[in-house]
Amino acid sequence: MSQAQLMDGAGLARRIVEETAKRAAGLKDRTGMAPCLATVLVGEDPASVTYVRMKQNRCRKAGIESRHVALPAGTTTAELVDTLTALSADPTVHGILLQHPVGPHIDERAAFEAIAPDKDVDGVTLSSYSAMSFGLPGFVSCTPGGIMRLLDEYDVDPAGKRAVVVGRSAILGKPVGMLLLGRDATVTYCHSRTTDLSSVVREADIVVAAVGRPRLIRGEDIKPGAVVIDAGYNEGNVGNVDFDTAVTRAGLITPVPGGVGPMTIAVLLEQTVTGAERQVGV
Amino acid sequence: MSQAQLMDGAGLARRIVEETAKRAAGLKDRTGMAPCLATVLVGEDPASVTYVRMKQNRCRKAGIESRHVALPAGTTTAELVDTLTALSADPTVHGILLQHPVGPHIDERAAFEAIAPDKDVDGVTLSSYSAMSFGLPGFVSCTPGGIMRLLDEYDVDPAGKRAVVVGRSAILGKPVGMLLLGRDATVTYCHSRTTDLSSVVREADIVVAAVGRPRLIRGEDIKPGAVVIDAGYNEGNVGNVDFDTAVTRAGLITPVPGGVGPMTIAVLLEQTVTGAERQVGV
Repeated sequence: MSQAQLMDGAGLARRIVEETAKRAAGLKDRTGMAPCLATVLVGEDPASVTYVRMKQNRCRKAGIESRHVALPAGTTTAELVDTLTALSADPTVHGILLQHPVGPHIDERAAFEAIAPDKDVDGVTLSSYSAMSFGLPGFVSCTPGGIMRLLDEYDVDPAGKRAVVVGRSAILGKPVGMLLLGRDATVTYCHSRTTDLSSVVREADIVVAAVGRPRLIRGEDIKPGAVVIDAGYNEGNVGNVDFDTAVTRAGLITPVPGGVGPMTIAVLLEQTVTGAERQVGV
Repeated sequence: MSQAQLMDGAGLARRIVEETAKRAAGLKDRTGMAPCLATVLVGEDPASVTYVRMKQNRCRKAGIESRHVALPAGTTTAELVDTLTALSADPTVHGILLQHPVGPHIDERAAFEAIAPDKDVDGVTLSSYSAMSFGLPGFVSCTPGGIMRLLDEYDVDPAGKRAVVVGRSAILGKPVGMLLLGRDATVTYCHSRTTDLSSVVREADIVVAAVGRPRLIRGEDIKPGAVVIDAGYNEGNVGNVDFDTAVTRAGLITPVPGGVGPMTIAVLLEQTVTGAERQVGV
């Protein structure tokens, strides 16, 4: 049986981060100031702690400073908003990442909106979403942005193709659909209420699985030769796509891990440096 | 041959406007202040002049004051922004309508964004778009909002159905797709770059034609029994759907005129009164 070509997100991410590190070093040479990403974490959820630490490590390796703000689990929405508002006003901070999901007692949308759009390097604000929807200047959500970069890297032009996005979250499904629409794909949004998901996915030239369900998309759902982007991650390196069956049908496919995941962080770092360059004015 | 049931937008709009007029009268009784819609027109394009006059007439009949601001064709973006900013700050104005398209020399997005979201009763700001996308409080774009009301009136529940939106404009195609997605439809966006539009439309349980091309959607493209919403208007009462052939296949269909058109104005008036009620605080 033929095997799809793997989309090497890890390799592309490495090249983006190398380029980003050069820009970070250049900024520091010119201004004496390194780009700085503020990371904000509410509570001590082990997975979130791990994610934040990984992002901080990547920052350090790329010459980006990170400033960590650890808030107790009982932090209120108002307190979190205050913290994010202060970081938004702090000229030594160039990008802000609120690790999410935050606890259910916090109004996550209110928190996101306290991040100034010019520091929203994670692309979570409504302003960033609008920019993605209408092709306006602004930061992209990191995973959708990483997916578009992967498509470009493998010369996948979405124009005129049918793209099916499975998932409709505010920072993944909805924006990646809007970015694909902006690149002239015919875009279909599927979700938990979609009737006969398999038959819809089967129409797709490009499938983006962006929903937290292990192995939801199976090989028999893939149109032969399609591009399959798995933006899911579940324990044990399991994505939203059943890789072993999908790889025999797809033309291009992202592995898990090493596909979309590394791209997300690479875009975060790149946007942090872009934000710093804009704010420092060089 | 069977004939689709007509969706009587004119009748529904009349009932919405009657209810709106009662609320406007009630507000005036309680506060002495009638709701007020500011209409802003740049230049003297005859169609735009007609549209604005029609909206003013409808306002008057519903007990809504209108204040018209006529700007010369040579108005700059900065001047238009200043006008809209001043209206946004004026406590005697409760809703603002910028008749569009404005001339090509004006940055329409910059103008829209000068409208305060709480007076954006035409639903053109990025803030309103985000609200429609994420189910947040805010005003809807009038035509998309009117379409959703028509679907409700005829007991069409979008949940689990396949909806195809033909068109991707900022105030019609994109937001109506987001509203349908919020109501759990599986939503596909088509546009000028879509390959084989007919075959995509044929999958739809609900078709929204929201693109300025006369009779683009033909009867043979309609899945038997589908709901067909024609949001287009071209000269001579011609919509985006070829009505004569579509009516023999659809289950429900909007006529042109008398379908979506009257709903757009009804939603504008209703949102103006809602805005006034909120701003006056009763």
